[in-house]
Amino acid sequence: MPHTQQFASDNYAGICPEALRAMEEANRGSAPAYGDDPWTLRAADAFRRTFETDCELFFVFNGTAANSLALASLCQSYESIIAADIAHVETDECGAPEFFSNGAKILVGRTTNGKLTPETIRAFVLGRTDIHFPRPKAVTITQPTETGQVYSLNEIRAISATCRELGLRLHMDGARFANAVETLGCAPAEMTWQAGVDVMSFGGTKNGMAIGEAVIFFDRALAEGFDYRCKQAGQLASKMRFLSAPWAVMFETGAWRTHAAHANACARHFAEQVEGLPEVEIMFPVEANGVFLKLPPALIGGLHARGWRFYTFIGGSARFMFAWDSEIARIDALVADLRALATADAA
Amino acid sequence: MPHTQQFASDNYAGICPEALRAMEEANRGSAPAYGDDPWTLRAADAFRRTFETDCELFFVFNGTAANSLALASLCQSYESIIAADIAHVETDECGAPEFFSNGAKILVGRTTNGKLTPETIRAFVLGRTDIHFPRPKAVTITQPTETGQVYSLNEIRAISATCRELGLRLHMDGARFANAVETLGCAPAEMTWQAGVDVMSFGGTKNGMAIGEAVIFFDRALAEGFDYRCKQAGQLASKMRFLSAPWAVMFETGAWRTHAAHANACARHFAEQVEGLPEVEIMFPVEANGVFLKLPPALIGGLHARGWRFYTFIGGSARFMFAWDSEIARIDALVADLRALATADAA
Amino acid sequence: MPHTQQFASDNYAGICPEALRAMEEANRGSAPAYGDDPWTLRAADAFRRTFETDCELFFVFNGTAANSLALASLCQSYESIIAADIAHVETDECGAPEFFSNGAKILVGRTTNGKLTPETIRAFVLGRTDIHFPRPKAVTITQPTETGQVYSLNEIRAISATCRELGLRLHMDGARFANAVETLGCAPAEMTWQAGVDVMSFGGTKNGMAIGEAVIFFDRALAEGFDYRCKQAGQLASKMRFLSAPWAVMFETGAWRTHAAHANACARHFAEQVEGLPEVEIMFPVEANGVFLKLPPALIGGLHARGWRFYTFIGGSARFMFAWDSEIARIDALVADLRALATADAA
Amino acid sequence: MPHTQQFASDNYAGICPEALRAMEEANRGSAPAYGDDPWTLRAADAFRRTFETDCELFFVFNGTAANSLALASLCQSYESIIAADIAHVETDECGAPEFFSNGAKILVGRTTNGKLTPETIRAFVLGRTDIHFPRPKAVTITQPTETGQVYSLNEIRAISATCRELGLRLHMDGARFANAVETLGCAPAEMTWQAGVDVMSFGGTKNGMAIGEAVIFFDRALAEGFDYRCKQAGQLASKMRFLSAPWAVMFETGAWRTHAAHANACARHFAEQVEGLPEVEIMFPVEANGVFLKLPPALIGGLHARGWRFYTFIGGSARFMFAWDSEIARIDALVADLRALATADAA
Repeated sequence: MPHTQQFASDNYAGICPEALRAMEEANRGSAPAYGDDPWTLRAADAFRRTFETDCELFFVFNGTAANSLALASLCQSYESIIAADIAHVETDECGAPEFFSNGAKILVGRTTNGKLTPETIRAFVLGRTDIHFPRPKAVTITQPTETGQVYSLNEIRAISATCRELGLRLHMDGARFANAVETLGCAPAEMTWQAGVDVMSFGGTKNGMAIGEAVIFFDRALAEGFDYRCKQAGQLASKMRFLSAPWAVMFETGAWRTHAAHANACARHFAEQVEGLPEVEIMFPVEANGVFLKLPPALIGGLHARGWRFYTFIGGSARFMFAWDSEIARIDALVADLRALATADAA
Repeated sequence: MPHTQQFASDNYAGICPEALRAMEEANRGSAPAYGDDPWTLRAADAFRRTFETDCELFFVFNGTAANSLALASLCQSYESIIAADIAHVETDECGAPEFFSNGAKILVGRTTNGKLTPETIRAFVLGRTDIHFPRPKAVTITQPTETGQVYSLNEIRAISATCRELGLRLHMDGARFANAVETLGCAPAEMTWQAGVDVMSFGGTKNGMAIGEAVIFFDRALAEGFDYRCKQAGQLASKMRFLSAPWAVMFETGAWRTHAAHANACARHFAEQVEGLPEVEIMFPVEANGVFLKLPPALIGGLHARGWRFYTFIGGSARFMFAWDSEIARIDALVADLRALATADAA
Repeated sequence: MPHTQQFASDNYAGICPEALRAMEEANRGSAPAYGDDPWTLRAADAFRRTFETDCELFFVFNGTAANSLALASLCQSYESIIAADIAHVETDECGAPEFFSNGAKILVGRTTNGKLTPETIRAFVLGRTDIHFPRPKAVTITQPTETGQVYSLNEIRAISATCRELGLRLHMDGARFANAVETLGCAPAEMTWQAGVDVMSFGGTKNGMAIGEAVIFFDRALAEGFDYRCKQAGQLASKMRFLSAPWAVMFETGAWRTHAAHANACARHFAEQVEGLPEVEIMFPVEANGVFLKLPPALIGGLHARGWRFYTFIGGSARFMFAWDSEIARIDALVADLRALATADAA
Repeated sequence: MPHTQQFASDNYAGICPEALRAMEEANRGSAPAYGDDPWTLRAADAFRRTFETDCELFFVFNGTAANSLALASLCQSYESIIAADIAHVETDECGAPEFFSNGAKILVGRTTNGKLTPETIRAFVLGRTDIHFPRPKAVTITQPTETGQVYSLNEIRAISATCRELGLRLHMDGARFANAVETLGCAPAEMTWQAGVDVMSFGGTKNGMAIGEAVIFFDRALAEGFDYRCKQAGQLASKMRFLSAPWAVMFETGAWRTHAAHANACARHFAEQVEGLPEVEIMFPVEANGVFLKLPPALIGGLHARGWRFYTFIGGSARFMFAWDSEIARIDALVADLRALATADAA
């Protein structure tokens, strides 16, 4: 059952060749469990080279765990976490941050595109300072945001400066971090620790891996005890090499960036093709690997009828996501169908 | 860096050919995320056929999560779980059952080989019945136990009868369930739901998979909400097919049993070879894929010096574990070294 | 240091004579601990008579615990609780519901006066039905609301009908339940279980007691294990009689209603006196024991300068609360000051 | 229903005159809520004078909460707490420490009388140092122990030295701290911070108060955020003055020591009277306000038949507790009955 007609999510894609090869290579013979193996060492080295710093890092199974464990390590149960209203931790993790932190509250900042601002953060911190409300302790930003916008380096720096001023720690949800790096064309270090990020969840799955995300502590002191935290939370893989080897090869080959560049290019290509079509509105600047369109119900129905898969949201928006394996030919076929439907509907 | 000299753990082994092939096959094209894919359906069917019942099942990342989530679903935070003193949930999961259940207490039954008895269970339930102590609500047994003994069907039935009488639910930690099935030569159904087990954690990793365990609810009513529980706990894989496809193929090919049979046979072979060696004592009946030897320090040191890897415990015990990939030739080499050392030391 | 100039909160008031007398009477001799005493029995009887039903009840220390334990008993960690935006559980309990439930999320319904509606509830339940978001399981309404409005019996019935239809349980935060009963002039049963409320937190402190709230389960099945839950949560008083005796006497003497009636009358009296004063706006209908005024900064400052204590909120609102011990003469003095300031400022 | 025949527990006693008077005096007029009142200030001053140090302190509702919140503040969920096997936190708090800490494990040291030793502590810390077991982070000792023995100053100092060496924090459960102070005749400071205790739960209820315990942080840095922690956990009293005023008066009048001295003297008196009676064995040195007797079933039954109330335990032990209100005449009557029964039974 092929799903080549799909643009629903970048996690519908399979394992990219580099990651699969790494798993196969790592499968030679026995290796110590729980990360005491050469592949995990090699992956850690690759991370440190890539980020140009002696960071501390941990491999966990998925993004929900990466985000939640990272946030739990930054705050107590009676503290709170400032996040954007459309942040994945707020909308799509089924209360995982609250669960892992034993009750920390997420304070939801209103945004248009998922980008927090220093002003929003400051308002939360200054708004309530009594013990009847959980005091803010951490800020989480998603880079790129869930609607595909990328914080500029200056925007991140402004947020981190506000965090430092107010005694908050800064977490970055980098589920699609590679896509953001490609968009800005900057060094990973510039976008993270040099910009003031304390901890990052770095997503491997959407970048082409089978399973696995990394939690990177740029401030090693914050990592104290995190190995125990992962173990207790059911996030320590016994055959760790199958999580870590793909990271090593993705970094060593540069595949993490080429895959992201490809996905971003697909999104831009799609956006360029549909721009100006009647009844089709591009809702957000296309800065990563997703395109959100405002479409009338007839068009949405028409695309579905032709077998295209994508997410729709209340109010008539449709999300098209592109992955390392997206094919330009399929995108063009999608565009052709959309154009035909739009033209017919507008006529 | 080969580790062919290792008998440290069955999770030092790599991915068995069947599981790897399944991952490669599942990697064709896109597939819906979060388990809404054909491989997951196929794996679920395979489970139901294998267990001859319409059980409810969930694929999670590792055994700590499988055990802890299962136990958390069986009790409230103010209740308790009866376990053997050497049970993995008590000794090797870093407080995960307490964490996932938000504080349920593990009541530790003294045992010699990890086997609980109806008497131990009854004593806990009758010992304290006031609200100042968490009331027992679940029992967990490990099959085979951490020292490699297998509960007989009658032993399980007696425990489950006690559980039903006392209002307790019965969980089986089946991290090495396949090995127990091979030892008893019974149907999986006989050892589980037909014997009164309510929920089981079924281990895939030690059976030859890269990652992944299954939680099987034989009583479907107990599974209510478990999908949300997994999601919140960071245990819902997005690219689920790479967890589920290996299960499907392992069952369809029978590899789950042949691998376990091989590992069991290796353990028996090793035990037979070392039996009667001077200064070497086999500590427990060899009923699964592990052999525990009591060895003097000189022998332990001698084996380590020759490059053999295995776990040692306080008091001079050494554990040798055998996996799907253990080679008889290497075992014989180990035996030869042990014989040489033992003979020399005894001389 | 007298605080007779205070209208800040009804929990600034001391212990009413009836409650104090009950504590003194309960202090004769020894009594079994943890509620196995005659006063607790007598209080439970009084509750059941008052509510005309064989409810199950528990005495805990404060309102935060009463609300949080009740809500935790209604939902799992991966479920959610629908509450109004200004509900005490959302704004003033420092994440206690999230903590006691181990991570249940509060879904915040936008309101003008703290009143939820069937439509708001329905929208939450129908809005998200996937496992990536915690499914709604409980609704909590505050009676009267934090701004002093009272749900009519029909409003409560409409909400509970919606809850039953959607499989939700209904909790009432009755921190000032007595005031609502006085306002509606109905029987306690009518406003609670007869209207479909499953569990209520009944506030004693704001009604004149020193310490203590009651959690009332109208559906006794929901109370299963709640005694253990209270114990584990540090909410089981050893000298229980000093929590329960005041409840007994408050009910037996009718003081719980006369005190509430007095506080309500004080609020109405104050509102009547200030109505129509220049620059003074009564923000909400006065249906319980609080009055919210919109006042210019000069008036707020002027009142503070004259020694009056009351809460102020961003945007120029001031809350005046009245308790069992509020004196009409002091209220009139306050009104006189306010009138003088308002007239001068308007001139 | 008088219970003058009772020696079941020191929490069966009522409120002592000093504590009751304090509550009555504190009941004059209004006072700010949540501890911002003059009585709480006065109580805090009394504590600091009594302990001769600028400690940080918090008033909570009961001992379970005091212990659990204190321990939760000392460790993470993936860490563990070393306690004696008969420690109240292990045997009588229904898993509260595990609940408040979100899963920290209690490591149970075998003892004969509830006294931990440096050796026991050291064995736990050195026994497991891998991440599969929760690392020890705190030690809790009960002073006096649950069987009524008192740690000497040197014993406490030896434990705290071990804690400091091993990086552990030291908590003292002082539910009957006053009794221990009277026994040793030392200054409170000597037994606590000067001996290396970091945090103490100080019991008021068993000393004669209606409700309330104090958590004292001798290391103020450890108290950071504890006010929020109490609030979130439902342990912040709104009418705080009724918790704090009794503390103030108990300290100012010295009643906390005279009541403890009286209870201790009653226990010694009872022990002296029953010593040497046939079939009666005093099980533990009487160093506080409890006496444990080993009695044959006939004597236990005989005493019960004559209306005496006391706790019994499996194996034929009986506990007699003495409180601030115990009367020598009643004790003598109990002794007379016991002597008559013992003499008759032995004959």
